[in-house]
Amino acid sequence: MSKFGLYGKINAVEGERDKLVEILLDAAKSMEQLDDCELYVVSISDSDPDGVFVYEVWNNEEAHQASLSLDVTQTLIERAKPIMAGMDRISTLIPMGGKGVVTQ
Amino acid sequence: MSKFGLYGKINAVEGERDKLVEILLDAAKSMEQLDDCELYVVSISDSDPDGVFVYEVWNNEEAHQASLSLDVTQTLIERAKPIMAGMDRISTLIPMGGKGVVTQ
Repeated sequence: MSKFGLYGKINAVEGERDKLVEILLDAAKSMEQLDDCELYVVSISDSDPDGVFVYEVWNNEEAHQASLSLDVTQTLIERAKPIMAGMDRISTLIPMGGKGVVTQ
Repeated sequence: MSKFGLYGKINAVEGERDKLVEILLDAAKSMEQLDDCELYVVSISDSDPDGVFVYEVWNNEEAHQASLSLDVTQTLIERAKPIMAGMDRISTLIPMGGKGVVTQ
């Protein structure tokens, strides 16, 4: 079964990006318990004052899907919703390996 | 000093994607020696038969820049050039933390 990767952007309501980063870093902390989640990296960009970029690597797509219905995830989504202005999925990926992930 | 992140796509010449993946996985192996490189993840995508997607996280931009002039990197670039049809830098990022990287 191949790994599953996602790269996307969450658009914060103007002025709320840093608060959204905090919420997503909390989400990353909750992923520490999930062995099937190898990476959940939260970034910002100088070229996009409202964007928060998340790069995820999961052992498989089912594990990612299951994580969305966890209580902790639902709580985080509720916290983030008021300051979210939208989401863009930039890439859906099949991670093949490299530094920082287990190579297929 | 903030971390430095990159997300980009390298376009393989038609039919050569898997060979390009191998070269980039070799590049990732060479990064194992570089403590300033936290992540170098190589992926493909079902929606792009010729694309190889690389997500990198470095402790700072200078370390990334310096890595480009290493002999091992130059050798890998020479190996890849004949089967590369182009490159797109999708995002230049400031990683803030998360699972799989040291949090700022």
